[in-house]
Amino acid sequence: MGTFKGRDVISILDFNREELEMLFEEADRFERMLHEGHVPRLLEGRILALAFFEPSTRTRLSFEAAMKRLGGETIGFTSEEAISVAKGESFADTIRMLDAYADAIVVRHKFEGAALYAAEVAEHPVINAGDGKQHHPTQAMLDLYTVRKLFGSPDGLVYGVLGDLRYSRAAISFLYGLTLFKPRMVYLISPPQLRVREEVREVLRERGLKMQEVERLEDVIQELDVLYVVRIQRERFPDPMEYERVRGSYRVTPDIVSKGKDTLRVLHPLPKVDEIDPRVDTMPQAAYFYQARLGVPLRMALLYLILGGEKA
Amino acid sequence: MGTFKGRDVISILDFNREELEMLFEEADRFERMLHEGHVPRLLEGRILALAFFEPSTRTRLSFEAAMKRLGGETIGFTSEEAISVAKGESFADTIRMLDAYADAIVVRHKFEGAALYAAEVAEHPVINAGDGKQHHPTQAMLDLYTVRKLFGSPDGLVYGVLGDLRYSRAAISFLYGLTLFKPRMVYLISPPQLRVREEVREVLRERGLKMQEVERLEDVIQELDVLYVVRIQRERFPDPMEYERVRGSYRVTPDIVSKGKDTLRVLHPLPKVDEIDPRVDTMPQAAYFYQARLGVPLRMALLYLILGGEKA
Amino acid sequence: MGTFKGRDVISILDFNREELEMLFEEADRFERMLHEGHVPRLLEGRILALAFFEPSTRTRLSFEAAMKRLGGETIGFTSEEAISVAKGESFADTIRMLDAYADAIVVRHKFEGAALYAAEVAEHPVINAGDGKQHHPTQAMLDLYTVRKLFGSPDGLVYGVLGDLRYSRAAISFLYGLTLFKPRMVYLISPPQLRVREEVREVLRERGLKMQEVERLEDVIQELDVLYVVRIQRERFPDPMEYERVRGSYRVTPDIVSKGKDTLRVLHPLPKVDEIDPRVDTMPQAAYFYQARLGVPLRMALLYLILGGEKA
Repeated sequence: MGTFKGRDVISILDFNREELEMLFEEADRFERMLHEGHVPRLLEGRILALAFFEPSTRTRLSFEAAMKRLGGETIGFTSEEAISVAKGESFADTIRMLDAYADAIVVRHKFEGAALYAAEVAEHPVINAGDGKQHHPTQAMLDLYTVRKLFGSPDGLVYGVLGDLRYSRAAISFLYGLTLFKPRMVYLISPPQLRVREEVREVLRERGLKMQEVERLEDVIQELDVLYVVRIQRERFPDPMEYERVRGSYRVTPDIVSKGKDTLRVLHPLPKVDEIDPRVDTMPQAAYFYQARLGVPLRMALLYLILGGEKA
Repeated sequence: MGTFKGRDVISILDFNREELEMLFEEADRFERMLHEGHVPRLLEGRILALAFFEPSTRTRLSFEAAMKRLGGETIGFTSEEAISVAKGESFADTIRMLDAYADAIVVRHKFEGAALYAAEVAEHPVINAGDGKQHHPTQAMLDLYTVRKLFGSPDGLVYGVLGDLRYSRAAISFLYGLTLFKPRMVYLISPPQLRVREEVREVLRERGLKMQEVERLEDVIQELDVLYVVRIQRERFPDPMEYERVRGSYRVTPDIVSKGKDTLRVLHPLPKVDEIDPRVDTMPQAAYFYQARLGVPLRMALLYLILGGEKA
Repeated sequence: MGTFKGRDVISILDFNREELEMLFEEADRFERMLHEGHVPRLLEGRILALAFFEPSTRTRLSFEAAMKRLGGETIGFTSEEAISVAKGESFADTIRMLDAYADAIVVRHKFEGAALYAAEVAEHPVINAGDGKQHHPTQAMLDLYTVRKLFGSPDGLVYGVLGDLRYSRAAISFLYGLTLFKPRMVYLISPPQLRVREEVREVLRERGLKMQEVERLEDVIQELDVLYVVRIQRERFPDPMEYERVRGSYRVTPDIVSKGKDTLRVLHPLPKVDEIDPRVDTMPQAAYFYQARLGVPLRMALLYLILGGEKA
């Protein structure tokens, strides 16, 4: 408990394996309570501020649901309102205002480092709901928790991480998170233009992640236990023809999924657009809706531990 | 109870008279509790998702108020946020996300059938808060409940339904709702261009509604017990002159109201623009603000029955 | 208590000193409860409607936080949503809708008199969260409460009110509020173009406020106990050169603050843009973040007294 209470959540790399396992156990408890339809109001009277400078419906609503399931409340603004929020005031002043009203602050921002800066300004804990192109720690926690639920542990598995590995903070945070466990192998599957950036690769290498870069999902699909998919955005390609050319190779279809093990599970942080064929949705391999569902108990556990309730 | 618990609310035609009467009795109970200022927190810990793909302040706020009066909570998005919600994801995926976070989903959408589709995708109950040009079942429930409060029962009364009967889902749902009771007569009062569509008329005829189409309110005002007014939108008329010509005949003034019975009551789903002269607002015949007020206890009853609390 | 229960809050001038002191004592109690982390749920089951026709994140979020800390709930709309709220309906009808759903209504509007009009239409209490260019009573309450916390009482102090005194409703409401106490002197510090309007000066004079208009902060800084700063907006000056010319003289820097007494305290309703040098933020004289923080207990006290709970 002590390691979470009052703590900021800026990067998944700030946590160790033991802490995540404690978090996951707590999440299991909350999942059970949700299932039984009876959750004690452990955060009654507490307020969570949601500062979304960038749109994020899923993450925002899952934090809201988590807080409210625990009897707590939320205040805040969405990206649509963020412009008028500012009226020209500094980011620091906006954070100070929320810090004055709430017990913790969830921040999503376009710029890398925004959450860290907010944490320096605020007295209350700050939770990074995604900033810049690297960090989205609660998504990584949720993704690892999902793997644990599906396979018992993230250890010993073969992973494929597919899509835009250059700019997707969900993918990069998942890779960072995997360094806290012992995956057997991690395949980084992307077109050459969208490989992980050197600075990220450096961190993964230093932390000893067994990884290999490949260009074609077909080449590794049979080995995978977990296929983690993120979107490839058209805008990343200066040449639209180039995009059209690679696109098909990174689309997950029933066909390619069927070539994998029966026990293969496909994850995706959502929202998905066309990178996964909708016919995959109903295959037993599709775990992304289950993954989305786990966002609530996982964030309940995190909020509960950070806001420092007693052991539930 | 059993007939409501866990049930989707897609069209008023899915309900029968007995079910509505049970609902109205429950609404009476909640109205009494609101009046006494003491409502048990029957839905504490429960979350209602509000998925408004189309603007709707009244319906949205009345669902929110209903849920919160019962100790429950809401999450969701308004139409302003809906675009960024999607980020290109499918409607089904958006519904699946809400289904993962909440205990029931309220949907408003431009397209007919959106609520039914959502109900097929979601495991939790879906409530249609208006989709397309035909269905707005909770509005119809509220309208019938208002008539019952005013006259004891919707049976045996003479109704005039005035305005755009071609495209107003509130008007059409009210007409559908009347088929569950025994009105003495229903006058459909509209300009020729805005008469009920043939498909709708067919349903009303099959269900045995005693109705008659008229063009002028003046011709029937003296017979009416209930005058249900909806807006006529300028945009419906290709020719603006045409609009200006008919407009005056469908405007409800103190003058025309005074020609009716003393017991005439005017209903309107709101918001109203200029189809009712504001001087009517203070006449005893004006029942539309009372009607708006009943939206809260009616929706409290509906949410309570669907989310399956015990008998209050 | 009796003087607050069910009461509208339109202008700070509607209150007397005794009432404000009762309010401040109640705020002290709630501040203590917040500090101890235990607030009784005195407004559980009650709903506050937030009708923001003009943007106002700080005021809105502080009302929300206040209501939710007391176990109450909020519904409403932000200025971004206000356009679709209306769909052409009258302001009075929008207020009537909120009056039907909630126990009190907070209104912010561009036009002077909007809150008063809302109060005439609504049966439930209306709280003015700023309308037009004169009234923002809860800001004035908060500002006076802050002075009381800092100095024991607003009496006997020397005030400087700096910035746009012509159009800033926060500044004018603070001046109105000061007339309820006994300041030793109030300096009105502004460029000639932005002096208080004659109608406002008339009220201040009639109420016996000891005041003096000056153009330069430097001339009075050494006398001040409280410096209340509001923004000067570029748009107020027809000639941009004119704005650039005066601008520097009304910017609060560490240098000018250091020329004042050690016990000088700087207030600002926030958000601030560049009228206060950010280096002032960390000086002991800067009281504006503390002031923002007091917005929650002050509004808790107000909501509690108006919604008429029992003595806490």
